[in-house]
Formats: sequence, structure tokens, C-alpha cells
Amino acid sequence: MSDDTTGPATDPILLSDALSTFDALWSPRIVTRVNDYDVRAAKVRGEHVWHVHEDTDEFFLVLEGALEIALREEGGERAVTVERGAVFVVPRGIWHRPSSADGASIMLFEPSGTSTVGDAHDEVPAHVDATTGHALAL
Amino acid sequence: MSDDTTGPATDPILLSDALSTFDALWSPRIVTRVNDYDVRAAKVRGEHVWHVHEDTDEFFLVLEGALEIALREEGGERAVTVERGAVFVVPRGIWHRPSSADGASIMLFEPSGTSTVGDAHDEVPAHVDATTGHALAL
Repeated sequence: MSDDTTGPATDPILLSDALSTFDALWSPRIVTRVNDYDVRAAKVRGEHVWHVHEDTDEFFLVLEGALEIALREEGGERAVTVERGAVFVVPRGIWHRPSSADGASIMLFEPSGTSTVGDAHDEVPAHVDATTGHALAL
Repeated sequence: MSDDTTGPATDPILLSDALSTFDALWSPRIVTRVNDYDVRAAKVRGEHVWHVHEDTDEFFLVLEGALEIALREEGGERAVTVERGAVFVVPRGIWHRPSSADGASIMLFEPSGTSTVGDAHDEVPAHVDATTGHALAL
């Protein structure tokens, strides 16, 4: 469980309003909850870190900009580009590294308590927030 | 589990592309999967039916138009309006009826196998598809 956001928000929330409350990059806010999952919003720019979630898939929806996700799959490495209005799910167990050269705003859906840097990761750079999500201060 | 969509899609999917594959109202398509959850897309217009999901919250994101959701809460009945770009979660156990006078496109997250008409419901009108989601034919 993450901070004091323990259930669904009681009113609709504009994602643009949620995003307007913070500027930090790679530092997701928990917008609302669905059962034991978080709906998170994040601003991103530059490179995240290679990491893996061993036990959960991770959902991305791009709200603004474009997100690239590099993936280390059985057949080799590839990258997908997730455009504005597109969704992509990184399967559990797949090492991946999100990045966005020009910046993006994204929505994530993943089990509460999921760390931004996964269960294993390369060295976390200073610009990446290792967190299970911050409470949204609307 | 629903149809043949048994895991995350392997490539990003534009929600607008997904929505362009069908015209049926109140008849969600399964766009991708996140663990044992579906990401569904639906077109809606007019009134759905009063129903309740006893064991799961239900997430709505409005992609186009606006969605109204009437709720029967402990304190009485109220309605929320979910604008384009806004999210709302109906808590488990709350009777609710989505509607959209002018039409909307929406994205849903809910456990795979969740019925569009819940575990209990008023009489289902002909224009409402009682389904656990249809496979997306991209």
C-alpha cells in the first residue's frame, strides 16, 4: 500500500489537473486506486534505468509526447515507440528501459507497492526516483 | 479469461485504432491485458443499465466526449460527470449506471471475466451488450 491513498478517489480527476501539481520527472503520483492496483501519472524526459518487474506486467498509456521502451526479449533487444494515445504493456520478467528524448506525460497501471525501479535494476541515476509512487496533492 | 486475448499485446496499440474497428455501443473490446486484468475500449451513447460489481472496483477513463455515472451511495444517489481526459473509479458494491447523452469513447480496467452488467442488474435493455468483453480485431 502506498501512502494515504487507500481506495478509489471519490470524484473524477482530470489527468491534466493531476499532472499540473508537480514537475518532478520519473516520479509518479498515485491518482486513484482500483482494487489493489494504482493508477499513476508521471512526467518523463531522458532515460529511465534498465529494470525488471519479476511478478507483474506494467501498463503504459501516453497522454502527451511519445515514450520509447527498450526491451530485452528472448530473441534480442528491441524498442517500441508508444505514441500519444497509445497503450503498451511490458510483460513481467522482461528487462526494460523507458525513455523520452523530448519528454512525455504518461499514465501507469500496476499493483500498489510496485517500485519504479523494479525488483532488479542497473545502478539508479540521480534523476530517477526509486519509489512506489507518491500521494497526489490536488 | 476472455476469448483468445490471454496476455499483453506485443506491440503498442493506438486507442483510436482500436476504437475504429467497431461501431457497437456498450460493447467493450479487450485491447490488451495486464496480469489478470483487461484493458477494454468501448463506445457508448444513451443509458447503460443499473448494475453492481460486488467484488471489484471499475476504472473509467474518458477518451472522447463525456460520461455520466449515476451512483447509489449510502448517503443517497448522486451522479458524477467524467470529462474527456478524466478518470473515475466506481468502488465495488456500489450500484451504478453509466450514461452519455451525446456519446463518448472510454477505456476501462477491470479483472478479466468481469461482466458489463455486473453480478446483479436491472432488466438489461436490448441496446446493452451483456459480455465479459470481445476480442479486438485489429
